Amino acid sequence: MNKSRLEAFSDGVLAIIITIMVLELKAPEGHQLSDLFSDWAKFLAYVISFVYVGIYWNNHHHLLVTVKRISGSVMWANLHLLFWLSLLPILTAWAGESHFSAVPMSVYSVDLLMCGVAFALLQQAIMRADPSNTLLADAVEGGLREKLSTGAYIVASFSPLLGLPGVWLSGLILIGVALMWVVPDRRIERVLAAHQRSSKS
Amino acid sequence: MNKSRLEAFSDGVLAIIITIMVLELKAPEGHQLSDLFSDWAKFLAYVISFVYVGIYWNNHHHLLVTVKRISGSVMWANLHLLFWLSLLPILTAWAGESHFSAVPMSVYSVDLLMCGVAFALLQQAIMRADPSNTLLADAVEGGLREKLSTGAYIVASFSPLLGLPGVWLSGLILIGVALMWVVPDRRIERVLAAHQRSSKS
Amino acid sequence: MNKSRLEAFSDGVLAIIITIMVLELKAPEGHQLSDLFSDWAKFLAYVISFVYVGIYWNNHHHLLVTVKRISGSVMWANLHLLFWLSLLPILTAWAGESHFSAVPMSVYSVDLLMCGVAFALLQQAIMRADPSNTLLADAVEGGLREKLSTGAYIVASFSPLLGLPGVWLSGLILIGVALMWVVPDRRIERVLAAHQRSSKS
Amino acid sequence: MNKSRLEAFSDGVLAIIITIMVLELKAPEGHQLSDLFSDWAKFLAYVISFVYVGIYWNNHHHLLVTVKRISGSVMWANLHLLFWLSLLPILTAWAGESHFSAVPMSVYSVDLLMCGVAFALLQQAIMRADPSNTLLADAVEGGLREKLSTGAYIVASFSPLLGLPGVWLSGLILIGVALMWVVPDRRIERVLAAHQRSSKS
Repeated sequence: MNKSRLEAFSDGVLAIIITIMVLELKAPEGHQLSDLFSDWAKFLAYVISFVYVGIYWNNHHHLLVTVKRISGSVMWANLHLLFWLSLLPILTAWAGESHFSAVPMSVYSVDLLMCGVAFALLQQAIMRADPSNTLLADAVEGGLREKLSTGAYIVASFSPLLGLPGVWLSGLILIGVALMWVVPDRRIERVLAAHQRSSKS
Repeated sequence: MNKSRLEAFSDGVLAIIITIMVLELKAPEGHQLSDLFSDWAKFLAYVISFVYVGIYWNNHHHLLVTVKRISGSVMWANLHLLFWLSLLPILTAWAGESHFSAVPMSVYSVDLLMCGVAFALLQQAIMRADPSNTLLADAVEGGLREKLSTGAYIVASFSPLLGLPGVWLSGLILIGVALMWVVPDRRIERVLAAHQRSSKS
Repeated sequence: MNKSRLEAFSDGVLAIIITIMVLELKAPEGHQLSDLFSDWAKFLAYVISFVYVGIYWNNHHHLLVTVKRISGSVMWANLHLLFWLSLLPILTAWAGESHFSAVPMSVYSVDLLMCGVAFALLQQAIMRADPSNTLLADAVEGGLREKLSTGAYIVASFSPLLGLPGVWLSGLILIGVALMWVVPDRRIERVLAAHQRSSKS
Repeated sequence: MNKSRLEAFSDGVLAIIITIMVLELKAPEGHQLSDLFSDWAKFLAYVISFVYVGIYWNNHHHLLVTVKRISGSVMWANLHLLFWLSLLPILTAWAGESHFSAVPMSVYSVDLLMCGVAFALLQQAIMRADPSNTLLADAVEGGLREKLSTGAYIVASFSPLLGLPGVWLSGLILIGVALMWVVPDRRIERVLAAHQRSSKS
């Protein structure tokens, strides 16, 4: 099967997700700076979601680099990931419009949690499709960042339901997790580099 | 002629179809969980359509893998398939908004029927363009799943007009057909595998 | 310079144009068949525009097949073509919503005329960028279909302003031109085939 | 790392940005020519933004042609550029709807300034990722056009706040900068050509 079409389709969907979110921002109704600033919550939600989709595109790219063979279940695991990512634009709009009120923040965090779960399932489907891909297996093994993120998403999903400080906590967690991921995944890069050296010698 | 641009264009259109459906979901107006749940019908319709577009992308991918030569009629048969698929987003929104009432369910099923017909026409156009492609001819021959789906779509198109139990039947049929297709098309994979073995020996 | 990115970008824009037009269709407000049928004009406008974008994608594909070298002016000529095509979705919505009244029909025809002019300019830019591309020069020379289309678009642009029969004439012309183009451009295919034969012998 | 997916993703995002802007144009409400012409400001804003996105696609293409190796920071620098470009559709709609009033014109100019800054950061990230890319370093060195544009964007960002003549100045500057860039970047082309000659001899 053909990895390049999987990449092309995923790139297409991610490019559309990251771009249609801006349609939900809508132009301010008035023409003053104050009209622009009164939409700060929608803009901030847009920035955060933009960064998250960027992270997923980056990680998806890193993940697929190591792949040689894909199967039907890899395709469906990939569509499953795209499904949860596709909900980000409306949940971003919901969180922004509500000025980050409790339920929208919680649902937004649950969606990010599902994206994380779906990404882990995609990694496993890829490893099952090609058990000889030890490169990926080595890189995934540790997975500290993934475990931290999962825990953080779970806290961010429940905390908003405990009142305003919980909403703030949830927001800070989501920003913190994003920052943690913006740093590129050096593990895969390191393993790849080590492999290139060893295959040359 | 160039198969890769046909794939790229189709990937683009399918990626956009699967993603703009989410724009029809719209963020709930209130900020409570009950506001989210009152949109369950639109969300369920979105999930089903997402799976169907995923199925078509998968099958399109499998179909094109075997293809070496395309012609003008393959291009138009492909556009014809994309046309019926392009109607899914608004028909999904219509079915969801109406909480799956009879006429929207029936029209939605008719559109899926037309997609199935268009896919069969595309297969035939591809076989006419390259009669030497015995790989595809072998794989298509049986076509049990296609025949079952066609029958099911016809029932699902008419049953909603016979009252509420017919609407339920239609819904169950559409979910059942989707599940039947999520299983990857082992026929083409098997024929391809057999061919690779024989060409190696 | 890199032809494949020009193709990829054009495919992306054309895929989006052909798909976002469906967003303008919108789901009918009521849930009866009569609600669906009352939107017939918007649906018909959608079908016609879908076919026209399909024609341009097809012709663009045929045109680029022969190209080896592109220049900055080819890029801008290509963007110029995409500009006029990008206006089709809103002009389609306008023509459909107005139930094909005179001014929207006229403006829609003017846009198709501009698309035709832009395509001719793109052909010329490509020929200037690579004068050695005799393949394309041979194929374009005759250009009967292009001349007929240009004349037809001009008539279709003015006739709606002369009253209802003129609107009908305009509609029939646009459908006729579309049908004329759905037949693939055998000239380029023939010249290409002749060239392959001669280069083999 | 894989340059082609960076290009594909950027092409996708740019294709969507350039095309969804047209959704903000919306079909005129009435069906007369006067209804069309009363939207002149939105149309003019659309044309200018279309040209700017075209310029960025062109320059992005030129920039990436010289690149062999990309890094994680190139990816994020690229996403940063796409972020500011992604705001163009709503800022275009805002400027157009307001008939180019002061604050929307100023904010639109600030966004173009940020796009310019982001493009410069992307150039630097690319040069850091591959210091051996002397081709790019040579071409960027001069950078007169970039400096002129930056100054012009700064003036265009502040001048609208000084009253109507300042708004006009801002509009003229933005059109002037666009025209300056439509001319292809001969520097990179010249350096590339010189390099090809020297590597042949």
